[in-house]
Amino acid sequence: MRSVRFTIEYDGTDFCGWQSQKNGNAVQDLIEKALYAVTGETLRVHGAGRTDAGVHALGQVAHFRTAAQIPALKLAKAVNAHLPPAIVVRAARDVAADFHARFGAASKRYRYVVNSAEFPPAVGRFYEYFLPRRLRLAPMRKAIGTLVGKHDFKAFQSATEKDIPTVKNMLDAAVFKKGTRFVFEFEAEGFLYKMVRNLVGTLLLVGTGKIGHGEFAEILASRDRRRAGPTAPGRGLTLLYVKYDGEADDE
Amino acid sequence: MRSVRFTIEYDGTDFCGWQSQKNGNAVQDLIEKALYAVTGETLRVHGAGRTDAGVHALGQVAHFRTAAQIPALKLAKAVNAHLPPAIVVRAARDVAADFHARFGAASKRYRYVVNSAEFPPAVGRFYEYFLPRRLRLAPMRKAIGTLVGKHDFKAFQSATEKDIPTVKNMLDAAVFKKGTRFVFEFEAEGFLYKMVRNLVGTLLLVGTGKIGHGEFAEILASRDRRRAGPTAPGRGLTLLYVKYDGEADDE
Repeated sequence: MRSVRFTIEYDGTDFCGWQSQKNGNAVQDLIEKALYAVTGETLRVHGAGRTDAGVHALGQVAHFRTAAQIPALKLAKAVNAHLPPAIVVRAARDVAADFHARFGAASKRYRYVVNSAEFPPAVGRFYEYFLPRRLRLAPMRKAIGTLVGKHDFKAFQSATEKDIPTVKNMLDAAVFKKGTRFVFEFEAEGFLYKMVRNLVGTLLLVGTGKIGHGEFAEILASRDRRRAGPTAPGRGLTLLYVKYDGEADDE
Repeated sequence: MRSVRFTIEYDGTDFCGWQSQKNGNAVQDLIEKALYAVTGETLRVHGAGRTDAGVHALGQVAHFRTAAQIPALKLAKAVNAHLPPAIVVRAARDVAADFHARFGAASKRYRYVVNSAEFPPAVGRFYEYFLPRRLRLAPMRKAIGTLVGKHDFKAFQSATEKDIPTVKNMLDAAVFKKGTRFVFEFEAEGFLYKMVRNLVGTLLLVGTGKIGHGEFAEILASRDRRRAGPTAPGRGLTLLYVKYDGEADDE
């Protein structure tokens, strides 16, 4: 048995997310099915980040153990032939037996794109959240800056999750403007379920002027999910890359 | 009767092109149908550029004459409500009775994206042509530079078109590299049918080393379609904008 690591890109538009589902339309299910078609083995693939329905990835990382002898890159190409075009394994290599895509990750980086144009986008519309509102960059920038460092992010946790550690170390959090688009990026050692989308939903309240950047900091300190904003839609979110100790990211 | 000008963005993936077709799945048909739903009039919409199946537009321009009294921007929003999300009218205004989207255009600018990565893209895959080959930028840049100015582009004309003027004035033609992607841009006072895709198909022969940039210049001079390369796929092409005399472009 050996361990293999895949770097996976997917357009999440037509899938119910990364994690295996009963209906079998999760990215994980489709990769496991493709691996079965190539190796004949029923494998369990472990992804670094759970991504929800509609969420995309440029550099999701996953690992699995296999008895197959086929070189990693050839295995990736064979698996791609059994995947829909919206999922592509774009790097593959053998890793040590103790490599774990999720528990071994040093950090992950996400991007969220909001398009504030007057009219909705047609080209690339599945990769951004259309919000035809006047958004102010400066207060959002002040608010997002308060996130960097170690904080208890309980206020931005999914309402359905309970009793897990909610202190996370945010390494970078920034927002910039590109035409009518606002691009948010977050890099942390770990994320809570739906945390990025809850952060963006609350930052947009700052951008539209509903709350001030001071109130944003208070919400973070309150640890109270009910005070935070709505969850921003999945389509605007992309997992950019996953980093592991001692290596450069794949991007 | 008044004349109205629309600026239209569309994702061409699911359409058979701009121009009206018997099956009614052309962008023009869908806009005319939406205008009928809003105004009750059977209108003819005139587009600036014919785009083929799979080709996208960020700034197609079209005009039509109508008896409807509704202000242009309101009309655009009402029309959008009757269009699929892949087509969006994103600007609208009244224009002089002699405005013609096609015959009055001073220039049009197109972009063509080739992705030369080892693995195909998943995110944004409908907006680029995947060609997993080593492409050399320098000779393509030399070749594309020979296109600027007034030339007879007969060698890059669609094989099905005959007996129309083939001399066009190319205002700008450039290629740059962004990661694994090669981005070609062309701005001309006018284009022949399939000219951009034929130019790109031939430039890619230069990029892969099949022909030299000198031979590319010879093909242009030869006016012989049989010497040029294959037509590059529609999905990589986007109409960026259309310019009219005395105004800035919409981008």
